[in-house]
Order: sequence, then structure tokens, then C-alpha cells
Amino acid sequence: MIHINENFLKLRAGYLFPEIGRRVRTFKEQNPSAKVISMGIGDVTQPLAPAVIEAMHRAVDEMGRPETFKGYDDGGVGYEFLRKAIVENDYKARGADVDIDEVFVSDGAKPDTGNMQEVFGVDNVVAVADPVYPVYVDTNVMAGRTGQANEIGQYEGVVYMPATAENGFVPEPPSRPADMIYLCFPNNPTGSVATKEQLAAWVAYARENQAVILFDAAYEAFISDPEIPHSIYEIEGARDVAIEFRSFSKTAGFTGVRCAYTIVPKSLKAYKKDGQTVEINPIWKRRHCTKFNGVSYVTQAGAAAVYTPQGREQIARTIDVYMTNARVIRERLTELGYQVYGGVNAPYIWLKTPDGLGSWAFFDRLLNEAHVVGTPGVGFGPAGEGYFRLTAFGTLANVKEALDRIAAL
Amino acid sequence: MIHINENFLKLRAGYLFPEIGRRVRTFKEQNPSAKVISMGIGDVTQPLAPAVIEAMHRAVDEMGRPETFKGYDDGGVGYEFLRKAIVENDYKARGADVDIDEVFVSDGAKPDTGNMQEVFGVDNVVAVADPVYPVYVDTNVMAGRTGQANEIGQYEGVVYMPATAENGFVPEPPSRPADMIYLCFPNNPTGSVATKEQLAAWVAYARENQAVILFDAAYEAFISDPEIPHSIYEIEGARDVAIEFRSFSKTAGFTGVRCAYTIVPKSLKAYKKDGQTVEINPIWKRRHCTKFNGVSYVTQAGAAAVYTPQGREQIARTIDVYMTNARVIRERLTELGYQVYGGVNAPYIWLKTPDGLGSWAFFDRLLNEAHVVGTPGVGFGPAGEGYFRLTAFGTLANVKEALDRIAAL
Repeated sequence: MIHINENFLKLRAGYLFPEIGRRVRTFKEQNPSAKVISMGIGDVTQPLAPAVIEAMHRAVDEMGRPETFKGYDDGGVGYEFLRKAIVENDYKARGADVDIDEVFVSDGAKPDTGNMQEVFGVDNVVAVADPVYPVYVDTNVMAGRTGQANEIGQYEGVVYMPATAENGFVPEPPSRPADMIYLCFPNNPTGSVATKEQLAAWVAYARENQAVILFDAAYEAFISDPEIPHSIYEIEGARDVAIEFRSFSKTAGFTGVRCAYTIVPKSLKAYKKDGQTVEINPIWKRRHCTKFNGVSYVTQAGAAAVYTPQGREQIARTIDVYMTNARVIRERLTELGYQVYGGVNAPYIWLKTPDGLGSWAFFDRLLNEAHVVGTPGVGFGPAGEGYFRLTAFGTLANVKEALDRIAAL
Repeated sequence: MIHINENFLKLRAGYLFPEIGRRVRTFKEQNPSAKVISMGIGDVTQPLAPAVIEAMHRAVDEMGRPETFKGYDDGGVGYEFLRKAIVENDYKARGADVDIDEVFVSDGAKPDTGNMQEVFGVDNVVAVADPVYPVYVDTNVMAGRTGQANEIGQYEGVVYMPATAENGFVPEPPSRPADMIYLCFPNNPTGSVATKEQLAAWVAYARENQAVILFDAAYEAFISDPEIPHSIYEIEGARDVAIEFRSFSKTAGFTGVRCAYTIVPKSLKAYKKDGQTVEINPIWKRRHCTKFNGVSYVTQAGAAAVYTPQGREQIARTIDVYMTNARVIRERLTELGYQVYGGVNAPYIWLKTPDGLGSWAFFDRLLNEAHVVGTPGVGFGPAGEGYFRLTAFGTLANVKEALDRIAAL
């Protein structure tokens, strides 16, 4: 008799975005003439860079001719031209030591952050920030690394590390031991970043506790402060304890094109029950090549164009568009007396709701009175209650209009 | 302390294709002037259809303009335009009942066949044919659904169903009960197909044993016999017990473009330990949307063009190219006195090695004396010993030359 994986039944309903969608639909039905401005979902809106478009057209043409047609990406780990560009531009140029055989090109940071847990035993203890990107937790629930959820949506056995205004939304290493630690900087949803010293404390913790850091750097392109590290491998010793996830989604507008990559250093090890060490890199490679068959050649050609001089300049301009929006949101809200975080090194603005309103109450007020959609902070975890996330992925005109309406509240 | 998933350590080294590569490299080093013809790897060689190329160019242009730019594929299950074309053309047109909400578009049949096992409990018994596409087995080893491998590479706890000349390379339902049954028709590696009656017997077995059939139909486009079903849903009752995997890889030359889809019927159920039933469709949807973020819009636009009148005609012509190769291989080898299977409804030719040679011995003879590369049957499982796979994915000129050389042996 075929049995279900009962761990899936522990999952709390995917509540946040469907619930937002439901409330927005209801509002629009009741107010058909209202012009609703969305600052809620973390999806890009600017078109792909011309250099990327050109490279993709060229690649499509290659696929149409027998002499240049490409079948399977040999090995499924990504074409060498792309992995080389990644190593040179994203690591060597910042003094971080990453080898081409440590780069695994994939179709997204969501798959990568979701799949990586598979290579680790189910008995490991998972630690995440609160609030948190839900994929880290949900994929560990599916794998059986947690118990049931409690009434505030936290799963038994997971170590939750509050990210609060007091710690600058950068949690400190937990007092309880943890084995798999998910960190995301620049942070979604709070927009916080970690300094070199803060990351060094995490690396020291991981080395001391023989833990692994799963470092999500999907938003590194938005860092404007030159003192903030873009990669965890800028920290001494990180190569022994950290896996890093990167994505072209937000960097280069690839949410609909699908390209990302993961770094698994060869010096990273895990342990067998008997204490013997096992290298993670070949294990992940085996996993990656057994369950994945490479990224579209057209997509990889587009991703490589991001590293050309024209591509770099063009994506920098797009990021400027978003970061100008972020600055305007931050400055206007501050003028209006809001307590505002993030938005300097990240496309997310995290604000304290006014008048002690709950996250959802503020959501409703914004939707009903300003016709602006954001994301209730509590949707990312209980420590997000009383906070609200706005994203900078829109047009400046819309952002300004949204803020005028918020000012008029 | 971070523990490895020790199930990964049970995996036998990925032996087959690396070993082929090693032997071919050694031969080429020793015989630098030899012109080696590869009929070994199941990768397409013909360029994409002009209708697909045109649609992809159009989609790339859309991605370059703000008013037509596409971010995340809403929900990650595939654009409606593609899922609709799939339902109409691949199912309704053949009298098979599949709903648009049952279609999950993905980046490959390898990921889908590898990932689907996740939604089922680890205590289920897996049944596979011998010989078999290794992904079905390896992904279950990783998940802990098997014990260790024995000396012939078979894993403890897996039910192996021999596919032999005696049963026409279509195994019958096993006498031992099994819960997750992987079937692949047209078959890789043997090129066999299952009749309606044979599939009906499998559906009856699954219904009687409350098992699930994981039906891999990645090669259905190569079926030439009008009596052979293309989908398991052409069999009465299959919607309650079968998941179907399809791919554009071989159908439309998408191995380097990456698009596939999986059908999870809403009437398919699995069981909790307490006997309660659980619908698989929403569970798979939750898995798919948590660990996957949709297929490139450019790829999906290309895939939809496969269903246009021009696209259909063009891909039919490409399949003709391969199937002409298959016919030539089959006919020449038969003339030469070989026992040959497959190649009529599949791009794979499965031949009995002559003179009682082992699969690898025949591989070496073909490489050294004819400079032709194929795949040793034993690489797909012990029942493949004494067999050899040739693929029809090449040019007719190369195929003819390869056969002339084999004739001269």
C-alpha cells in the first residue's frame, strides 16, 4: 500500500501570499475604480539588459543551426564559460578563493536552498532567523527534520533566532547547538546586512560547533556600503563551514529566465555517525547531476552577458532604478515619522507599523485607505509582528504616488 | 555536529558513462587519426524547429521591453498557454482525460522522475525493470528507500523485474508486493513498447495492490504503431493509480533548452499510516512550488510552438530523421545476422551481442575494430548483460558508415 510522506502534512498552509491575494481581490471587487499599487511581492519589473537580450538572441540562433546546436549541458553543472565568469567576477575580484569545480549552476536559488538539505542527515538541528524566507523551513519540514508546528507557526525542533531592532536584524549565534544554519544577507525580509565582524562570529561558531552555514546571498548586488562583504568567503575560514547561494534573479532581472548558482567548497566536510568525515562537494555533485540536467543554454548565454562591460553597466543602472525607489521610500517614510529599516543595501524596506498596529491591521489600512499593497511582517515569522515589508521593485512614479497616498493617511 | 545523509554513501559510483568516456579517450589518444562515431549517448543532434526558434526570439524580445517583460511564472506550475496546449494536444486529442490543474511544467523529466518519490513515505517498496534508467533507483537510494548494493549493483529492498527477450522486454507485475512502480515505455534502454493489454494488466495490479505507477513516457513521440498507447491515461482506471512524465527533450530536441511536464491526476491518492487517504495532487503542488520556481518564459514559449501546425510538422520531420536512422540500423544489423530489438517505436536499438560476448567485451571490439561507440547493456542492470544499446540520434551518413564498419568486422 502506497504511503504518503506524512511530513508534508505538518506543513502549515501557504498562507501569506494567497491571503494577500485574496484580500486584494476582494478590495478590487468592491472598489473597481481604485488604482492599487503593489509594493508587496519580491519580483522584478525592469526588462532584461540589452546585452543579455542580445546574447540570448545569439544563443537561440545557435540552437537553430546543426553546427552550433547544443544538447545536454555536459555534466549539468553549467557551461565553463559561465562558471569561469562567476569565479573571476564574483569571487576572485573580491579576493575570495573559489574554484570553478566548486560552482554549480542551477535554475534558481529557491531550488538550491530547498534541495541542499538533502545531502545532510535528518537528525541535524536546523537554525533559522525569525522572520525568515519560508523555503528554508518548509523544505526541512518535508524532509522530516522537524516536529509539528505550534499555534504561532513555529516547528518543533527548529532553532529560531529572533532578528529584532535591538540586534539590528542580525541574529547572534544561538546558545543551543545547531547543525544547519540558514543565513540570508542582504536579508529578505528585513533588508539588514551583516558586517565582516558579524559574519566572522558566525564562521567561528560554525567551526567550533562543526556546523554548516547555508548562506543565501541572492541580494548581494544591492549592497552599496563598501565595507559590507558580498560573499561569506570574504571571511577567513568560511570555506570549511559554508555553502553560498547566489542568483541572477534580482541581480539581473532573471526571475522569469531562471539562473542561479551555488558554491560548495571542496574543503567543506560533514560527519558520518562513526565520526569519519565526508566531503560535501562530490556528494552535492552526485545529487545535482542525478536530479537535475542543467540550465537552458539560452539562459546561460544570457547570464554570462551580465559579466560583460556593457552588461555590468546596464544591470548597475537597473539596480540604481530600484535603489532610488528604496531611497525615496525610506526618506519619505522617515519624514512621515515611521521607523524604517533596510533599503540601503537591499531592495526591501522593513518598517515598524505605526500606532502599535498589528502587521495585518496595517496591511488592511494601507490597502483600504491608500490602495497600496505591502507584505505583513508577521507572515515571515512571529518576530515580524508589528512590522511591514515594502519592496523597491516598481516604477518611481508609482512609488511616489504610493507615498503621497500614505502621507495623506 | 553536521551529519551527512549516509544514504548517499550507498550509491555505486556513476560508472557507465564515465567509464565509456575513459575508454574512448584512451582509444583516441592511441589512435589520433581514427574517426570515432558515437551512437552511445541519448542526446539529440538535430537543431530546434524553425517555429520554436521563432517563438523563442519573440519571447526574448518580450523580455527586453518593460510592457511585455515577464517575472516569475505565476505559481511556478507553467503558463496557462502551455498547459492548455498540452492538455488539448497530448491528451484530449487521444481521448485521455487530463485537466489543466493536473499539469506541472518543469525543467526536465530527470528532475521530475527523481523528485516525485519525495511525496511518498520512505517505507514504500520500489519496483523497477532490469535493465533500467538509473535515475529511478539512485534517487530512491538517496531517500533511504533501499539497503546496500550487492556485488552486481542491485540494492537491497528494491524489486527488480527482469525485461528479457522472453517477455519482449516488458516485465510482468511482480509476485512480491510493490508500492512505487517505475515503468518506462517506449523503453530506455531496450526500445520496447507496452500494448494496451500489457498496460491494463499493470493498472489492474496497481489498483489491486494500492500501488502507484510512475509512468515515464519521455519517448512517446517515437511511437509509430497506431495500436500502441502514448499515455497511460488511455487505459481505463489509470487516473486513480498513475503519474505520467513527459518531456520535450527527445520530442522536440529540448535537451539543451529544458522543458518537461508531469501529470498528477486529482483522483490519485496515497495512504497515511492510519489508513486515511491523502490526495497527491495538492501535495505535489506544494512540493513543486516550494522547491521550484517555474521554467524560463523563453523556454515555455518555445515549447508551446511545438503544438502549432508548423511546429508539429517540423518536429515530425526531425523524428523521421532519427527513425530513418533507427530503421537503417535495425535492417542492416538484421541482415548481418544480429538479433535486434527496439528501433521501431523508440530511438533505441537493443541488440544481442554476437558470439556470446559480454557487453563490455563487445563495446571494446566495436570501439577498437570499428571505431564505433555504443552503450554496454549491463550498464543498465545485470539483465542487460550480453546486450548493447545503439541510439539513432545522429546523421544518416554517420549511421551508414558505422554500419559499413560493423559489417566489415
